[in-house]
Amino acid sequence: MNTEQDDIRQGAARVLSSIRETRPLVLSLTNSVVQPITANMLLAVGAAPVMLCDAEEAAELLGAGCSALLLNVGTLSRAQEPAMRSAARAAREHGVPWVLDPVAAGLLRYRTDFCAELLGLHPTLIRGNASEILAMAGEGNAGRGTDSTAGSADAVPAAQKLARKFGAAVLVTGEVDYATDGETVEAVHGGHPLMTRVTGVGCAMGALSAACLACAETPLQAAVATACILGDAGAAAAARAPHPGSFAVALLDVLDSLWK
Amino acid sequence: MNTEQDDIRQGAARVLSSIRETRPLVLSLTNSVVQPITANMLLAVGAAPVMLCDAEEAAELLGAGCSALLLNVGTLSRAQEPAMRSAARAAREHGVPWVLDPVAAGLLRYRTDFCAELLGLHPTLIRGNASEILAMAGEGNAGRGTDSTAGSADAVPAAQKLARKFGAAVLVTGEVDYATDGETVEAVHGGHPLMTRVTGVGCAMGALSAACLACAETPLQAAVATACILGDAGAAAAARAPHPGSFAVALLDVLDSLWK
Amino acid sequence: MNTEQDDIRQGAARVLSSIRETRPLVLSLTNSVVQPITANMLLAVGAAPVMLCDAEEAAELLGAGCSALLLNVGTLSRAQEPAMRSAARAAREHGVPWVLDPVAAGLLRYRTDFCAELLGLHPTLIRGNASEILAMAGEGNAGRGTDSTAGSADAVPAAQKLARKFGAAVLVTGEVDYATDGETVEAVHGGHPLMTRVTGVGCAMGALSAACLACAETPLQAAVATACILGDAGAAAAARAPHPGSFAVALLDVLDSLWK
Repeated sequence: MNTEQDDIRQGAARVLSSIRETRPLVLSLTNSVVQPITANMLLAVGAAPVMLCDAEEAAELLGAGCSALLLNVGTLSRAQEPAMRSAARAAREHGVPWVLDPVAAGLLRYRTDFCAELLGLHPTLIRGNASEILAMAGEGNAGRGTDSTAGSADAVPAAQKLARKFGAAVLVTGEVDYATDGETVEAVHGGHPLMTRVTGVGCAMGALSAACLACAETPLQAAVATACILGDAGAAAAARAPHPGSFAVALLDVLDSLWK
Repeated sequence: MNTEQDDIRQGAARVLSSIRETRPLVLSLTNSVVQPITANMLLAVGAAPVMLCDAEEAAELLGAGCSALLLNVGTLSRAQEPAMRSAARAAREHGVPWVLDPVAAGLLRYRTDFCAELLGLHPTLIRGNASEILAMAGEGNAGRGTDSTAGSADAVPAAQKLARKFGAAVLVTGEVDYATDGETVEAVHGGHPLMTRVTGVGCAMGALSAACLACAETPLQAAVATACILGDAGAAAAARAPHPGSFAVALLDVLDSLWK
Repeated sequence: MNTEQDDIRQGAARVLSSIRETRPLVLSLTNSVVQPITANMLLAVGAAPVMLCDAEEAAELLGAGCSALLLNVGTLSRAQEPAMRSAARAAREHGVPWVLDPVAAGLLRYRTDFCAELLGLHPTLIRGNASEILAMAGEGNAGRGTDSTAGSADAVPAAQKLARKFGAAVLVTGEVDYATDGETVEAVHGGHPLMTRVTGVGCAMGALSAACLACAETPLQAAVATACILGDAGAAAAARAPHPGSFAVALLDVLDSLWK
């Protein structure tokens, strides 16, 4: 009897079905390391990925039928800043939901400050590990590289605070994922340690959450669905492929056929 | 009895053999999302990929034994423009054949204008989906992200017009691929829908067409060979691997052994 | 009886065990084509990869517990120069060992000059093919794209000269890999031609050598361990997967379980 996790899975299955039917166009301004796996994960769930660099093009696309936006600061540069700002503003103007993934915020000053600025443009959903969410909530925790040095449960109060302050859903990822809109907190179990042994799975999760935002009823439901889809797919892929090279391949295959 | 497709396959097999024997050096100035699959697809067919960023280096390499060039505007930026211009001019000066892949032209103004400028530098071959070819021919069709909203057959007259106007071969890709030099039109059947579920297969096709240009007798033959090589490989890979993660792996494996 | 290669393998196994235990944080400022495979290869051996673009962030991370640094000039640009300079200086200041991978040095003037400047910042280890090492030692050999036109044995005297002049270990890679600290020269046999048919294996080897520097007793031992780990893994992967797509996947799987 695990009815809560069953309810979560049914909700996530509805969101995934909707992604497959409506093929939302997701613009990802993300770090250069993870662009291929991000686009491939969006394609695997049935979404339509777009990536570009130019600030004018970003604004133009967001006014021309784009369904959701991801901003990921993993390889932030002075050259990339204008496109990110332009995209966040255009998303707000056109009512396009958007995700902020504050990679390594708290560890490096430049991106931490820039993410604080982006928070002011009101992301619909914020996805991070515990260290990143603590840093975004102003509760300093540096992390180590892109890894968290805190457990995800430790960041739940900070996630709630962040959600309430900026009117966003927050998804804290870790061994257990937690989604909150500031009031409700949902825990999603699942996943597999191999997901941390392939570069970009966490970052692609941010893009998946953008696709879910385009198809879910609420940002909280999108956050929960993201965690559930990727958790189930990760566990199934690890059962097939116990090493990281073949695991990455299996993860895309599983996402293509998940819950069908 | 399908002698026309058999003739096409025999011509393509000669081009592929020549790529494997001569290992043409192909410089790709392409979008950041598809750099890995582009290089890996070139390596899989036996070509030697080179990528770089700097305008002076691009010109230097094109004067130092480079066999063909690809320009793909998928993540065009103000910073990338000078290298693309420099490369196109150096290719022309040194008689190196080059390919223009006008990704999402017609949808976004900045790249559409830049591609129009590049057309004036006389690409040897232009590869695009129907929406992109219609846009390049001045017959507005916006597409949706990187996807065409028109069928490839609909763009054949525009492809012929474009080919005649700029003295280039044009390859329109879709469910059926069409190659033309302005007069002759060749239809190439094959391929598989999974090719649209892996990021960069279409863009890597542009790089493959550059390798074919280095080894074919005419630009039209290169365009036909490109469509035939990738179409046969895609169909064979999909028969082995019906999901996108393993399909991408199988596609490279199949290209390595195609028609051997 | 091949006791020398056995000794080499035992030393390499100790280095690999130490990487798995200590999980060194390796900052790679590398070319955009190979970022995913570089991060994935580091993850496969148990290291923690970080990549970023900004000069201030690079310096900040090198002062905050970073274990080793790689600079790879494969897609060098004017925009990337400041981060590379900043990182090399910060590495020196904080005693963090670092690797220079002078991709295509000797072939293209801009990067050749920049690599000469970086040599003056005293890399701990230099990894290149024969053409690149000859060029760095001032013995002009242009190579062809990213491929060497000389055999690795031909570059051993130049490697020794380079090692002595800059106080670095030098790893010359090819059919046989040679590691030297200027005095001792170690030959490492192994590997497989498929390693040259997947983009970025050589570049990821530079990142692997940075991880080894963080865990070996001497730079020479790190260079030898790098060649031995990747050579053994490449041969084992090729035995499983004789085509390049599946070979790339198998290589990561093998690295994850090598010598366990």
